[in-house]
Amino acid sequence: MAGGRRAAAGRGPRARRRGAGAPAGAAPGGGAPASPLRVAVLGATGYTGAEISRLAHLHPALTVSAATSERSAGRRLSEAFPHLLFAGAGADPLLSPAAEVDWDSVDAAFCCLPHGTTQAQLAALPAHVRTVDLSADFRLRSLETYKEWYGAEHQAPGLQEEAVYGLTEPYREDIRGARLVANPGCYPTCSLLPLLPLLRGGLVRPGGIVVDAKSGVTGAGRAPKEGSLYCEVDGGLSAYGVGSHRHMPEIEQELARAVGADGAAAGDLAFSFTPHLIPMARGMMCTIYVELEGGASAGDLRACLEKEYGQERFVRVAGEGEGMPQTRHVRGTNFCHIGVVADRIPGRAILVSVIDNLVKGASGQAMQNLNLMFGLPEETAIGQLALFP
Amino acid sequence: MAGGRRAAAGRGPRARRRGAGAPAGAAPGGGAPASPLRVAVLGATGYTGAEISRLAHLHPALTVSAATSERSAGRRLSEAFPHLLFAGAGADPLLSPAAEVDWDSVDAAFCCLPHGTTQAQLAALPAHVRTVDLSADFRLRSLETYKEWYGAEHQAPGLQEEAVYGLTEPYREDIRGARLVANPGCYPTCSLLPLLPLLRGGLVRPGGIVVDAKSGVTGAGRAPKEGSLYCEVDGGLSAYGVGSHRHMPEIEQELARAVGADGAAAGDLAFSFTPHLIPMARGMMCTIYVELEGGASAGDLRACLEKEYGQERFVRVAGEGEGMPQTRHVRGTNFCHIGVVADRIPGRAILVSVIDNLVKGASGQAMQNLNLMFGLPEETAIGQLALFP
Amino acid sequence: MAGGRRAAAGRGPRARRRGAGAPAGAAPGGGAPASPLRVAVLGATGYTGAEISRLAHLHPALTVSAATSERSAGRRLSEAFPHLLFAGAGADPLLSPAAEVDWDSVDAAFCCLPHGTTQAQLAALPAHVRTVDLSADFRLRSLETYKEWYGAEHQAPGLQEEAVYGLTEPYREDIRGARLVANPGCYPTCSLLPLLPLLRGGLVRPGGIVVDAKSGVTGAGRAPKEGSLYCEVDGGLSAYGVGSHRHMPEIEQELARAVGADGAAAGDLAFSFTPHLIPMARGMMCTIYVELEGGASAGDLRACLEKEYGQERFVRVAGEGEGMPQTRHVRGTNFCHIGVVADRIPGRAILVSVIDNLVKGASGQAMQNLNLMFGLPEETAIGQLALFP
Amino acid sequence: MAGGRRAAAGRGPRARRRGAGAPAGAAPGGGAPASPLRVAVLGATGYTGAEISRLAHLHPALTVSAATSERSAGRRLSEAFPHLLFAGAGADPLLSPAAEVDWDSVDAAFCCLPHGTTQAQLAALPAHVRTVDLSADFRLRSLETYKEWYGAEHQAPGLQEEAVYGLTEPYREDIRGARLVANPGCYPTCSLLPLLPLLRGGLVRPGGIVVDAKSGVTGAGRAPKEGSLYCEVDGGLSAYGVGSHRHMPEIEQELARAVGADGAAAGDLAFSFTPHLIPMARGMMCTIYVELEGGASAGDLRACLEKEYGQERFVRVAGEGEGMPQTRHVRGTNFCHIGVVADRIPGRAILVSVIDNLVKGASGQAMQNLNLMFGLPEETAIGQLALFP
Repeated sequence: MAGGRRAAAGRGPRARRRGAGAPAGAAPGGGAPASPLRVAVLGATGYTGAEISRLAHLHPALTVSAATSERSAGRRLSEAFPHLLFAGAGADPLLSPAAEVDWDSVDAAFCCLPHGTTQAQLAALPAHVRTVDLSADFRLRSLETYKEWYGAEHQAPGLQEEAVYGLTEPYREDIRGARLVANPGCYPTCSLLPLLPLLRGGLVRPGGIVVDAKSGVTGAGRAPKEGSLYCEVDGGLSAYGVGSHRHMPEIEQELARAVGADGAAAGDLAFSFTPHLIPMARGMMCTIYVELEGGASAGDLRACLEKEYGQERFVRVAGEGEGMPQTRHVRGTNFCHIGVVADRIPGRAILVSVIDNLVKGASGQAMQNLNLMFGLPEETAIGQLALFP
Repeated sequence: MAGGRRAAAGRGPRARRRGAGAPAGAAPGGGAPASPLRVAVLGATGYTGAEISRLAHLHPALTVSAATSERSAGRRLSEAFPHLLFAGAGADPLLSPAAEVDWDSVDAAFCCLPHGTTQAQLAALPAHVRTVDLSADFRLRSLETYKEWYGAEHQAPGLQEEAVYGLTEPYREDIRGARLVANPGCYPTCSLLPLLPLLRGGLVRPGGIVVDAKSGVTGAGRAPKEGSLYCEVDGGLSAYGVGSHRHMPEIEQELARAVGADGAAAGDLAFSFTPHLIPMARGMMCTIYVELEGGASAGDLRACLEKEYGQERFVRVAGEGEGMPQTRHVRGTNFCHIGVVADRIPGRAILVSVIDNLVKGASGQAMQNLNLMFGLPEETAIGQLALFP
Repeated sequence: MAGGRRAAAGRGPRARRRGAGAPAGAAPGGGAPASPLRVAVLGATGYTGAEISRLAHLHPALTVSAATSERSAGRRLSEAFPHLLFAGAGADPLLSPAAEVDWDSVDAAFCCLPHGTTQAQLAALPAHVRTVDLSADFRLRSLETYKEWYGAEHQAPGLQEEAVYGLTEPYREDIRGARLVANPGCYPTCSLLPLLPLLRGGLVRPGGIVVDAKSGVTGAGRAPKEGSLYCEVDGGLSAYGVGSHRHMPEIEQELARAVGADGAAAGDLAFSFTPHLIPMARGMMCTIYVELEGGASAGDLRACLEKEYGQERFVRVAGEGEGMPQTRHVRGTNFCHIGVVADRIPGRAILVSVIDNLVKGASGQAMQNLNLMFGLPEETAIGQLALFP
Repeated sequence: MAGGRRAAAGRGPRARRRGAGAPAGAAPGGGAPASPLRVAVLGATGYTGAEISRLAHLHPALTVSAATSERSAGRRLSEAFPHLLFAGAGADPLLSPAAEVDWDSVDAAFCCLPHGTTQAQLAALPAHVRTVDLSADFRLRSLETYKEWYGAEHQAPGLQEEAVYGLTEPYREDIRGARLVANPGCYPTCSLLPLLPLLRGGLVRPGGIVVDAKSGVTGAGRAPKEGSLYCEVDGGLSAYGVGSHRHMPEIEQELARAVGADGAAAGDLAFSFTPHLIPMARGMMCTIYVELEGGASAGDLRACLEKEYGQERFVRVAGEGEGMPQTRHVRGTNFCHIGVVADRIPGRAILVSVIDNLVKGASGQAMQNLNLMFGLPEETAIGQLALFP
């Protein structure tokens, strides 16, 4: 297996467990606490919070020492999510209000709360607590853009400046040392992983990108609303937020960074984006239409992506002639699968990328980032394969 | 009820029944037989054949006098489709091989057989039989294009020349007098209805169209294949035929006709097209990305479509500020619903059109065409509302 | 078709339309108003209300003259249910509060409101208004039982006494003359249609009945609650209200009536009942386990049911050797399909009955009852076949 | 966390990894090979075969050294199941015909082939190979019963006699030493786990049991047939094999064994059983209606089950007042969840038990048994929580 993309140390389940066997405290990443890592989950009763709990159960060097919910405080986590009953009694924490967390006995936090609710709170955390924030609060570098899209002044501009954008593969080194990681949105994760290398490499025209995105219903969260009812979603399909979805400025920010890196004028950047709600609980697909630059071919695009991701555990590029990626093949996993084909129209190509919106698009990437921050093997707790069918 | 919804010419069930009350034989369309119209369904045991039977049950002036199946000959239709049991014993025909149909007692035929199997057969039908063919066999005007995409010489080039393309609304007048109607594919129906008027009106650039299409699984037919199994389709999403789907030349043919009508060079035409399989039985959506021509706005596009379809029973344009069309609102119906919004990118707009792939995308439009051909009120048997939820 | 079970006058689509052609005003049922029948839908924005609107669109002798909603008053019905947009502008009523209905211009009402909210209101309606109430309010004959299961005194005991239980087939004659019909629940409809004739005929032991019931999610209504969210329902299965569902006393009341009719002691009656929530929008199945009485065989049960329902349009008994009924074959329809097989255990049999919970289990049976009450052909507006697939 | 879930002997991921850290060869179970355990998967391209591969990926002491398929020999396993691509190149075996397996380098086999195809083949395996057979071939102790239900003479009666029925919890000790384990069917697993202790304890009447069973569609396998197509299954519900399902004699055999243990006459045993197909990929529920014996209460039943399973990792009894078990809470896991409530009818109780039919109902229990057979911690590779939602 020498030279294979997964032959490197730390890949695969066996290696993972060897890695995990080393005490977390000995990790060279700096700042790692004595084992096990004590983690607080803020907002444990939403879908991303539950997913953190599911993954934490597979993590040999992490323990959930606090789980918060304002409305369900005093109840057990398993009352909100009965599937967590099976983690065993010791793994079924009492929910507490966030204000009652004893931060002295917490090393790290996953913040799984809605946008705009916790900026000041995170800014007030003790300095020793390292945080992965799954909301959109710290993703936008420009405070003006933030205000424009979220309709309010940012409450923690200082912390905002310190935050590192947590798309793991391209920004791994920045994430290692971060105190606050702004975990990317699901649509940005699914569209940026294929697009960033292509834009950096000057292979596609920044001004002619169309991203048609499809998401499972967990993306709408667990709050009861008519539009999320089974009978309103099953058996049909809808577009939403057409031309105005809040993930747009986030995607644009990162695309512009990639274009700028190549010397092109980011001002030429233009991408159309339409999200759709698909009758399935999990999964996300971006179908991406690009115009090729400078005589590039679909094969050149594939080669660029393979070079970028060939050594990565969680991003896989489909070989030529392989079938196109399907969401069900990454369900429940942290993988991103990318396919490229030539369009019938000369000078164009079509990419398809898929993730599980709750894992690589949220809690799995958050866990990946936490592993990085604490010097643990990156794939710890997130190496399992898809539940198919 | 003067002025009420059902008083308008030819609209609604009352009008339908009035119309139906008049004997079909008296219809001015020419060639109409004495009532009721005797129809043969060729290929009655596939999904489009079953849908013809479902609609025929609501038709007061049509009777299914023959239903064919090679493999199930000798069995009752309800053995293939138990829901047709409820039509009553008299409406549950014995299936026969196509060769045994007594064409003297048949006025019209719906051909619901796979592509490439019935060209010679249809060419050999007695001249008095008027046919709606739901396969792709007679849709492409160019025999070369046909051969290129279907890999075989056309077996009935003479009949091919006579066939009328059956997209009802734009080609209504041609259909009235046709002996053979080539019923459009589902993807072409869903994408052409919004695009044709815009191209004819010169409102969008022919060279910059992206059609991202999503279909329910009935589109794959009833033949048992692994890829159509419940467990392979449920809970996930896939793209297929990327860059090579056979509906492309059909769409292109009609788009070119529309562009040509405007004097522009059809050679500039370029549209990207990716179909996706959605975990739902019925429904189709096309999300269409266009570049605006000559300073047109999204509002201009909407106005153009409203002008085109304002008097139509089966095509509806969503008003400004209305929600975007959803497939579930047209499930089981012959309606096409179209929405238009401005893209965030200046100079671009996004359209969303939805149909039921088995009704307006197949058997419903076929019934609409047959009604036209025999001078019956166009909406007979296809006026019901969506089954929602 | 002579002699067929649907050959009787008024059966089948063609007959239906003939019937419908006769003006409603001429109907011999007594009390029928001049055509068209003007109907108020109280609670138009729930699923059963929407289903009334869908069916009314197919009704040639009925017009919805008022549609009420307290919370959505002032909006169009189509804002709540966009699929009703396609009924045409004249068929998209403004929603009003129930207090604003002009009862002088209303002949009949469908009450689609939740249990316990409208008893006094219905009691106060003008005497000329004939009503079908889809709630449970007037189904239980015993005021004590009502109080026990619904936790409150009945607010209109006089009207309660007058109400007729609206299971159409066994109680048709009572319904014709009723001013208030208590439309049955979905579980009672699905379990009583097979069980009543068998108990009346003394073919099954009253003390050994098990009804295992399965329902689609529309049965839970449109109110946003966590348990009805797509992501909480999809891909799984749950039992609910085990041993305590409110449809139990309703079923028990009617089973006791049937047992009593046969002279047996209703006190021996005992049926176990467990409802389950199935990941599908519509459909209901009752799997019924019975012990045979007096040497009866499964064939005797089938013969009894065929005798009872052989002339009925909406109840069908599967012949021996036919496949067992499936919910999808009655989806969107008013049909009930019943199958019987011998159990492997001697002396036992198993029945399977299916309906669409929103049609025969609610709004369709309500329409059937209204047709009866006004002397219209019973199948008007509810004769269509299932939407399959 | 002393005393917490992961401190207990052999429970939870930490223990699992500790156990896994010890070389499999040192396991005291006897016959364990040098680490890692080399396993052949016979019939790797069906759903249970794929599930074995998914779980094996999480197993630190097992390697898949051979994977067979007659029809797909020469292709990679990932061509049949693309989700296994993500296991890494080294974990994507070439498929070979069963005849080409080098048994000298194989320690154990999972046989995932259809019933009736491999009896002679398994009988001919070298003695050192220990096997878990997932088919029904070796489950029935009586050769007459086998012949009656499967229509053929058993081809390996000697091996049949040696086989141990692999319902892990009640038969754990027998399984440890077995050379051939007949892995139970999904329906038997789901119904026997709740019923065996109750019958052994004399708490329920053997003659009055009704098991209403519901299964996801993976139970029908991956072979393309019309009845398993998405469009035939979605949105509806059906009963099948009513009164004649092949899992009946298997359940009956084990119930009789339990009754016999208590001294009661097994001849009094009678259980009705109806399986249903639910529109979901995975999951199984048995709703079990019982008559209480000797004054027992629902609470007594719960106490009996809690005593039986209180120390078990994979069987959990819902506490009083807890919600009833749902299939989605065990999806993808090896857990069985059991609930008990008193029926409204005195002297009766209702139980609900749920499993994932592909895991505890097939491949997970097979892995659990293999772990037992080779002295590995029983929960290795099968300790993960449900994928919810």
